[in-house]
Parts: sequence; structure tokens; C-alpha cells
Amino acid sequence: MIRRMRKQKNSVETAETLARGQREISVSEFFLKNRHLLGFDNPRKALLTTVKEAVDNALDACEEAGILPEVSVDIAQTGESRFRVSVTDNGPGIVKSQIPRIFAKLLYGSKFHRLRMSRGQQGIGISAAGMYGQLTTGGATQILSRTGAKARAHSMSVHVDTRRNQPEVLKDEECDWLPQFFAAAPDGAAAEPATYSHGTCVSIEMEAAYVRGRLSVDEYLRQCAVVNPHLQLHYRVSLLSRETVKAAEDDDTGIPAPAPEEGWTTRHRAVNAAPDLPREIKPHPHGVELGMLMQMLKDTKARNLRSALHQDFSRVSNAVALQICSDAGLEPNARPSRIATGEIEALYNAISRAKLMRPPTDCLSPIGEEAIEAGLRKEIGADFYTAVTRAPAVYRGNPFQIEAGLAYARQGSGNKEMAADDSARLMRFANRVPLLSMAGACSITKAASGVNWKAYGLPQPRGSLPVGPMVILVHMASVWVPFTSESKEAVAHYPEIMREITFALQECGRRLSAYLGKRRRQDEAERKRNYMELYIPHLALGLKEVLDLPDREEEKIVSQLRTILDRTHLQI
Amino acid sequence: MIRRMRKQKNSVETAETLARGQREISVSEFFLKNRHLLGFDNPRKALLTTVKEAVDNALDACEEAGILPEVSVDIAQTGESRFRVSVTDNGPGIVKSQIPRIFAKLLYGSKFHRLRMSRGQQGIGISAAGMYGQLTTGGATQILSRTGAKARAHSMSVHVDTRRNQPEVLKDEECDWLPQFFAAAPDGAAAEPATYSHGTCVSIEMEAAYVRGRLSVDEYLRQCAVVNPHLQLHYRVSLLSRETVKAAEDDDTGIPAPAPEEGWTTRHRAVNAAPDLPREIKPHPHGVELGMLMQMLKDTKARNLRSALHQDFSRVSNAVALQICSDAGLEPNARPSRIATGEIEALYNAISRAKLMRPPTDCLSPIGEEAIEAGLRKEIGADFYTAVTRAPAVYRGNPFQIEAGLAYARQGSGNKEMAADDSARLMRFANRVPLLSMAGACSITKAASGVNWKAYGLPQPRGSLPVGPMVILVHMASVWVPFTSESKEAVAHYPEIMREITFALQECGRRLSAYLGKRRRQDEAERKRNYMELYIPHLALGLKEVLDLPDREEEKIVSQLRTILDRTHLQI
Repeated sequence: MIRRMRKQKNSVETAETLARGQREISVSEFFLKNRHLLGFDNPRKALLTTVKEAVDNALDACEEAGILPEVSVDIAQTGESRFRVSVTDNGPGIVKSQIPRIFAKLLYGSKFHRLRMSRGQQGIGISAAGMYGQLTTGGATQILSRTGAKARAHSMSVHVDTRRNQPEVLKDEECDWLPQFFAAAPDGAAAEPATYSHGTCVSIEMEAAYVRGRLSVDEYLRQCAVVNPHLQLHYRVSLLSRETVKAAEDDDTGIPAPAPEEGWTTRHRAVNAAPDLPREIKPHPHGVELGMLMQMLKDTKARNLRSALHQDFSRVSNAVALQICSDAGLEPNARPSRIATGEIEALYNAISRAKLMRPPTDCLSPIGEEAIEAGLRKEIGADFYTAVTRAPAVYRGNPFQIEAGLAYARQGSGNKEMAADDSARLMRFANRVPLLSMAGACSITKAASGVNWKAYGLPQPRGSLPVGPMVILVHMASVWVPFTSESKEAVAHYPEIMREITFALQECGRRLSAYLGKRRRQDEAERKRNYMELYIPHLALGLKEVLDLPDREEEKIVSQLRTILDRTHLQI
Repeated sequence: MIRRMRKQKNSVETAETLARGQREISVSEFFLKNRHLLGFDNPRKALLTTVKEAVDNALDACEEAGILPEVSVDIAQTGESRFRVSVTDNGPGIVKSQIPRIFAKLLYGSKFHRLRMSRGQQGIGISAAGMYGQLTTGGATQILSRTGAKARAHSMSVHVDTRRNQPEVLKDEECDWLPQFFAAAPDGAAAEPATYSHGTCVSIEMEAAYVRGRLSVDEYLRQCAVVNPHLQLHYRVSLLSRETVKAAEDDDTGIPAPAPEEGWTTRHRAVNAAPDLPREIKPHPHGVELGMLMQMLKDTKARNLRSALHQDFSRVSNAVALQICSDAGLEPNARPSRIATGEIEALYNAISRAKLMRPPTDCLSPIGEEAIEAGLRKEIGADFYTAVTRAPAVYRGNPFQIEAGLAYARQGSGNKEMAADDSARLMRFANRVPLLSMAGACSITKAASGVNWKAYGLPQPRGSLPVGPMVILVHMASVWVPFTSESKEAVAHYPEIMREITFALQECGRRLSAYLGKRRRQDEAERKRNYMELYIPHLALGLKEVLDLPDREEEKIVSQLRTILDRTHLQI
């Protein structure tokens, strides 16, 4: 048997020649080549992803600084398949030294390492958008930022050096702080100039396509307004030719979103308080794996095991820490870094056995039932609205919280978007961010289709969403949303998450069922009343003839019968 | 209106405090937290992914070095939910200095930057497996490697320092080269010791679960043998208790794979020649985007534009390069690094307009029709086999090639796996690697369901795979397979790829249809023949009586009638 191949036209490698080919791959190169993983599959999605990343960052920054957010999104067509996206906020601004890395370095940010709910979590998004712009047009990401009334504004242009995943600064100058929309905002924004003395504007030109429909920027911003009722949003789309606008090819719903108006349009805020700022928490011991525990003991600043357990984890009191140590057969005063691998395993098992309170939940900032209802009322024309915020729960040691909302339109209320014989529309959100794509892969869709809506009086094809003139909203808030991909479009199928979504939707369903029942009874009574009212004059005429009453009496009888009918009606 | 929020229990951030929280995120930390993206969602999948990554690397290394691969996979249960996976190959070995980075640094490798078909492409897989083992057990990745008969073998243990994405060497010693399976291989492997004087063995302990069924390691290795008929594979599973084995929960097929035998089992190779080593190519100009073109002109070693175009791209002759320059209005002798941004755009447009040959295709190494048939015959018991290798095609500038195979079993051939009333089984492969999960998201599934199988005589529910006792195989070979996620389980939906898959399957379908037609005619003739044969003795008896023939004549008539019948049968 010939086990060595014949010498081929191509040179055969040896361990040594193979070694020479080995190279480090920068994370920028990796995601540039795999940019579909980040939501830059095609020009249409690239535009949406860019707006999404920029708006997410703007909202996170405003909320962290305790500022009621006012954000403008300006999309301007610059060529047949080119657009410039500019997003401006009234947030705290960014100190100059951080600008290059925040906008032109992948995997850089403040949100990855902390356990606190925020829209961004990876430190990839906005730099990836800039990198995509750079790839398709050669242009740079432009940033204008000012940190306060007394600070100078900075204008910078940055490129990603993809070979090294490092920012390259092309322009860096002090300048005036005059973002376009502050003047243009029709809301009289200039009335309170203090709020607008700071902020950030990011602007990227890229190969893109502006489309309408369910997977469009329009729809994204609209849903954004639903779950961020405290957001004041200005939006403008300037096209070279308005005839080029169409729905996305993969948008099979056939429902066009409202055409963008010329010039700025504003979505006003519905509530005047920003959400509570969530608190950062420490990891819960039951969510920590063995290797992570080793790393934490190696890195801890605590001087002994007991205080390492107490300080570095949530829900471990001194007493619990001592009990865990004794259960593991370890000395509470041992130096954390000196504990042997085998002992850490004993410690890990002792932690697993320990009874602990669930993780604290002030790391979450749910939207709240009132605000969800307000958001739905603002954006969705319907007759019945309800919302449910569940108590926090835990998956893999991570606290999370599910909220659901429902808007139901009476038939014939003229809402083209909600037809009685269409499937209900499902709006999915994670940490207040709308999820538009990949609905089929998302646990929210799966849970919503799994609810038995027939029990609440709605037709439902097997394994599908119910049919009816309604919108279902589901929001997952968590310190770490388990997305199925870096482009953050679908939530992974954890049973704990699915269960909470199901419970929230069942509660909404019961309320809808009560409303539908009441409405059905009202309609029934109305029908009866109309029917009887028809006969009252004839009845009165008959009585008049039988009893030989004067005309005046007849009128009196009619009026009395009406009163009786009204009273009965109320009791039906 | 109060635009500033009330001071909350949590401190509000400013640009300065926000800046202090900014940090670089190492790619190891990123994928550790997002390990489901790499195929480490759960213990069952972790085991499969680890075997897959190790076997892929072993096969790539052997083929690059021109060695017929012999690989052993040893899975040993070490605790209730712990396993040690060891994979050994007879490849070229790895030089000592490269071992730590290859096995304990994410995004490091030789395959990412070159355009040549290989199983690995990202430089993540095996280090991620080690990192998962480290996280769940605290253990290190152990490597044993020897580069040839005269070299010393090295034994190393490495950890990933996840904070820095750098390897940490825990053990490093010279030792004897005695991987377990060389002695154990029942094939008399020791007969040719030269081939076994080198190779690599990687061993990782991890939290895992061994299951059976369609998403199991067993099935993976079996499919691996189908598309790598030149692979000699040894496999052993040692369990603490054999009762624990069950099918994966998400394996809804209900068809158990064969139980693993005690001790080593071997899948012998079916062909004794390794595939042709594909050649590395340069990027095709039509697949290069503007930003990439800028980068290439900046990095080129060529001294002028003309030779940069000629040397750094495929299919650009000197004449074509000159024509592109003149079309773009650029000087062919210009220094590439001195060309301005606007000029590069003109160049980019000129390149788009240029008529160029399609990319070269010797960068691909298809399996080949013969080898696919041999692989199917080896692993799938059926009656009809066929295979099609399409000519190479191009998507986004990347050459690719589609192959398809089909195995059809006569009903009642006793193959439990292929029932007549089940959907056909679809085996998906990319660069000779079986894809087991995420079938629904894969363009191969979509294309195979889109073929009109009814035209070939098979029942087919709308939008689904055909129904019948058969296995469909599709292989995509490319210099860059566009996977939908880092875990490389599904191919993205490029129209060019879908089209090629459809054509390949249609050809298989036509051949199957011809076979089924012939078989149907044969069955029909057989039935007729049996029917007539039944009457021949009666006919002869009648003739004998009518013509008053002797017994001997009757026998002669029977025999003559049989002969006539046989002859007619052949013509039916």
C-alpha cells in the first residue's frame, strides 16, 4: 500500500514550512471577512445595522448620564448605492482620548465586563459599522463630541487599521459644537440650551440601500419609540430620487411602512422621566463555572478565601462564606491564590450545594407596564391595550425579566396594518432594542407560537401565532441577553426564558379574553336593545288603542318604556 | 419640562467616569462568554465540536503534507459528566515553538489569510475547545507531537490566558513518541513504521455528554468517512456505565445510531490516494471591494500600479492591467502607495468594467464522483448509487464547486435507517466536513427542498425534502465557505450557491428517475413472466391433448415456450 502520495505539482508541506505560514488573525480582519455575522450581509441590512448601533449607543450614554435622550437620525443618499448616516445625541459626550478606540477598534467598550443591563454589550457594533463604510467607500468615521458647556468640541476622523485592530486618526481638531438637528428640531429645542451643550454626533458613509417595510430603518425607529417612550426622536431621509424606494426583497409581509416625509419628522416622548439607572451587580455563585472560579480566586483583591467569597460574589454573606469553606474542607483564612486545583473543585461543589438567595435584580431596568401601554398607544392605533411586567427570574446565574404587551383593534377601526384575518404582529425587544430579523430563530417567536391562544378566543393555526387584528410585544431585559449571533437579532432557547415569556403572554391573553367577552356581551345587548326599540312605538300604539288613552299618554308610555329598557340594558 | 433626571440611588455617569470604564475585550473573553457561537452550547455539543475541530485539523495537516491520513479518536468518560477526548494523527507534526499558539490562542493559524480550500479557516476551533475544557474542568490542553523519525517528541500542557488571549505553557518536556492507537490499531499499522514516526496527539478533558443518534460523534465520524474515503479511522468510546447512553434530546428522528462497540473499531479507507493538494490563488479583482483595494495598494510589494494589478490579483495579465489603468485614467507607472482616494475609486470602477476570466479553480479539491460513490457504498447499504461533480462556479469572487450524491435502497432491503415512508436523509458537507446541526438555516437544505422531486417519480410534500428510502449528499468545496455562524454548521444563502446545488441534485434526480423507470419495467416484466410461466404447463397439456402428442413432446414444448418467454422478456 502506498501511504505517501506521489509528489504533486504543488509543493508538499512539512512541519517547518507549515509553521512559517502561521499568523495571528486580528479580530477586525476576522469580522471584516465574516461581516454577515455582524449584520452587514447586504446594503439594506448594513444601513439598518448602522442606525441601530448608533442609536443604541446614544441611548445608553444618555441614560447612564441621567439625561433624557433626544436623538436625531439623518440618512442622506450620496450616490446610487451610497448613503451617509449621521446620528446625534444630547448625551454626556466622549472624552477625546477615548474617541478613536470607541469608534475604530473592535472589542473595546465599557459594557462587556460588567453585569448591568444595557443595549450594547459587545463593544463591536459601531466600529464594525465604520469598518464596513471604510471597506465599501474608503471613507472614515467622523465624530463630533463635546462633554459640556465649558469644554471645547472635538472633531475627529478615524479609520480602523484592520491588520492590527487599532484606530488610525486621520483628522483631529477643536471646533464649534453645532450639530445640525439642534437648529432644525421643530420642537423648539433651543429653549433649554443647557441640555444641548453636550453630546456626540457620529457620521459614516457606506454602500447601502434604503428600503421600506418591516425590515426597514423606519420600522426600527418606530419600534424603538414604543419601548423607549422617554425618547425624543428626530428623523430625516433625503433621497436623490424618491422613486427608488421599495420594500426589502425579503420582507414578505406586503405591508408598506409609511413613506418618509420630506425634511425632519419628530416622534415626541410620551413620558418625561428616564428609566431608573440599573445598578451593577457581582456574579452569582451558582452561575460561575469551575474555570471562572479559578480565575476569580487568582485575580481577587481579597486577602483570604472567606472575604473573596463575600466580596466578589453577590448573595454570599460572611456566614454563608464560612459555611461554604467548612463544607469544602478549606481554611477560611487561606490565601485565595494559593488554593490548589483539587481544592477549588471541592469549593466549587460546596458552592453548588449551598442554599443562596437569587441574584439581586436592581441590575435590571424593565420598561414597566404603564410605559409599555403608553408606548403602544403612541405608535399603534387600537382599542384595547394591556401590558404585563413579570417578576425577575434567573437563567445560568443571570437575572432577567420578561415584559409583554398587547394591542387589539376592533375590526374596521381602519388600521391597515392589523387585519382581522392576518397573523398577529409580534414585536420582539431585548434590553429596549427592537429585533427585526431572524424571527424564526428566536425563542420569543417560539414561546409566543406555543401559547394556546384559542383558550382566549382567538383563532390559531397549529404551532403559529394567533390570527387577529393585534400586535404582541415581548421585551426581555437582562444583564446578558443570550443572542444567537453577534448581530443580536434572536434570543437563544433557554427553557427559563421561554417559560417566563409564556406566562407573561398568558396573562395578556386572559385580559384580552375578558375584554373580548365583555365586548361580545355589549354588542349582544346593543343588538337586543336596537331590536326592542324598534317595537316600542308599535307597543305604545297598541296599548293606547286597547286602553283608549290620549296621545299624551302614548308619548309618556314610549318614554317610560325607553327608561325601563335603558335600565335593563345596564344589567344585561 | 424636567429634562434632567432626579439624582438616583445610583451615581450618574459623566464623560470622564464613562471613559474610566472603557476597556479592551480580549477575543478569548468574548468567545468564552459567547461560547454558544462556537458550538459549545451544551455538554453534548461540546463533545461533538471538540472531536470535529481536532479531526478537521488532523486531516488538513496530513493532506497538506501529502500523507494518507490515519486518525484515532479516543473518548473516555472520566466522571459523571466529564470526558477526555484524545485525537491522534500521523501528520507532519508541529514544531515546538508553534504548539502553544496553535492550541491556546484564538484567531491564530495559517488558513485564514490564504485562498485555498481547507477544512479549518478561522484559527479558532481547537483553542476554543481547550478553553471550554479549562472553563469546565480547570484542566489544560495536552499536546504530544513529533515532526519526524530523527526529531524528539514534545509533550506540552497549555492554558489560554483569556484576559490577553495568549497561551500559558504549564508543562514542556521532551519524551517518547508512543501514541496509544499505533499499538492498538487492528490493521497491523506497525508494519510500516515510517509513516508513524511523526504526528500529533491532542487531548482535552471537559464537561461533556456522550449521546447517540443523528447529532452524535458516531454519526459525525461516519459521515466523515463518507466524504474522506482516503481516511483510515480508529474510534473508541470508553464509558463508566453503558446504560447512560441515549440519543440527544434535540434529535427528534428516533433512529438510534449503532451502539459503540467495546474497544477500538476501525473504518478502513476505501481509496488509497489522498486528494490533490489544492493550490493557493490570489484574489479575483471582481471579488475585491473598494476598501480592500486601497489596503492592497498600500501593502503591495510591486513598484508600480501595472505590476501591482498583475502580481497581486488572479486573471490580470499585463495587457489587462494596462487597459484597466488607461480606462481609469491612471499612469501605469504610478507608485501604488501614492494613488489618491478619488483615483482609487476610478480604478475600482475600471476594474468592475474590465472583462476578466473567472478565477482559477485549482484552489479547490472536489471529492470526485467516483470517490463519493465509493464513500456512499462503504457507509450506506443501498441498491442504487450516483454522484455528480459540477464545474466550478464563483460567488462574490470566491471559486466554489458543488457535488451531490444519492443512494436509494429498494424497499424491504432491510435498511432501518431508510424507510420508504420517511423523508430522505440529507447529508450536508462543506470542504469535506459534515454539517450536523442547524439544517433549517442552511442553503443546502433550502435548495434540496426546492428541487421538484416529483418530476423524478418521488413523493414530495410542499417545500420539503422528498419522501423515500434514500440518502442525499451535498458537498460544497470553496476557498471560503460562507458559514452563517462561527460554529460552521450552515451555509449562507447565496443565489449562485443555491443554483449550483439545484443543478447537481436535478442531475442526480434524472439518473434516479431512469433507474426507477428501468426497475419498474423490470418488475412489470417479472410479474408478467411469472404470470405466463404459471400457464405454460397448462398450455402444453392442452396442446398435447389437442395434437395428441407424447409426453416427451410435452416437455419439449414447455422448454421451448420458456425459451421464447425469456427472449421476449429481454425485449420488454
